[in-house]
Amino acid sequence: MTEMKATNITWHEGHATREERAALLQQKGATLWFTGLSGSGKSTIAFTLEHALVQRGRLAYVLDGDNIRHGLNKNLGFSAADREENIRRIGEVAKLFADCGVIPMTSFISPYRKDRDMVRALHVAANVPFIEVHLNTPIATCEQRDPKGLYKKARAGELKNFTGIDDPYEAPTKPELTLDATNTSPQQATVLLLEFLEKQGLIGAS
Amino acid sequence: MTEMKATNITWHEGHATREERAALLQQKGATLWFTGLSGSGKSTIAFTLEHALVQRGRLAYVLDGDNIRHGLNKNLGFSAADREENIRRIGEVAKLFADCGVIPMTSFISPYRKDRDMVRALHVAANVPFIEVHLNTPIATCEQRDPKGLYKKARAGELKNFTGIDDPYEAPTKPELTLDATNTSPQQATVLLLEFLEKQGLIGAS
Repeated sequence: MTEMKATNITWHEGHATREERAALLQQKGATLWFTGLSGSGKSTIAFTLEHALVQRGRLAYVLDGDNIRHGLNKNLGFSAADREENIRRIGEVAKLFADCGVIPMTSFISPYRKDRDMVRALHVAANVPFIEVHLNTPIATCEQRDPKGLYKKARAGELKNFTGIDDPYEAPTKPELTLDATNTSPQQATVLLLEFLEKQGLIGAS
Repeated sequence: MTEMKATNITWHEGHATREERAALLQQKGATLWFTGLSGSGKSTIAFTLEHALVQRGRLAYVLDGDNIRHGLNKNLGFSAADREENIRRIGEVAKLFADCGVIPMTSFISPYRKDRDMVRALHVAANVPFIEVHLNTPIATCEQRDPKGLYKKARAGELKNFTGIDDPYEAPTKPELTLDATNTSPQQATVLLLEFLEKQGLIGAS
């Protein structure tokens, strides 16, 4: 039995190809990079999409504060250099997941254009699709929702350098998609994202 | 059509579960951590196993110098602190891949026991299987093979702190598997590893 199995194994020097992974997973690896203010709906939409994809038999994975800031990036603070390194590492990890055939989704404010453009360049250089999704929910809506109570703290001066209050958010100039959670439910956003992924040929039509 | 799709989407606050991912992929996420001297056979075996798994419809992914040192860890050198951070980041990334349901395999010398034990502890804390595979190929064999010409340079004094020559390799005390590439071909090693993964219930029997 062991011998039989062994004869089926082919010698290779490098990775299984992206084509082999795409045939196995019935999808193409690609990074969905969600960016927007705190409370703009990034994580809610990302997790809703993750579930919708997994329910369809597609493999997606959300990278967010919970699994990154407490793990890979736990040795980073909030200095300018550390914020840039935070985004760089997340971009590199997303690229690895997409290279593996997965559809990684990142849910971070990622307020600076140059950092997001750096991550896009990493993906372009590796020939991995990079889809920037701008959550363009107005700050008034985000502040009204304030799911983590952060705006309240920022307005009270308890949080410094809070994006949108006393630190800038630089909106993408050419995002692949723009969504506004004010009048778009997470389910509606997910439908739009699934249609986008289908149209790009990254997942099959359902 | 859009409406029909939307009704199938369920709202969730967090990740798709590991059970959902395991059902989708027909495997359980687990990290295979290869450790051993330069030239001991780590990468060759890891890539052979990766291909064998992908050919069986299982999703595996090798993390190695090529995709880590030139990407995520390109800002790390070879100081003691940087070597530890190198292994820590690789461990965190492997944990994320395994949490996603993938079978990541890491191919790094990872000479220090405390660093490997730290990575094992990260996995234990996350309830992710960690399989340490010790490539116990004798240094004489590794040096004779010397696929990258590194031993020659180290013996000539052109490379300092080379593991096995002038820097220690601390062998695992309780690895899950031990292999010696002297008399075990990559194909034979792959058969043994597939059988191990089957016995652990991480992949189905073929």
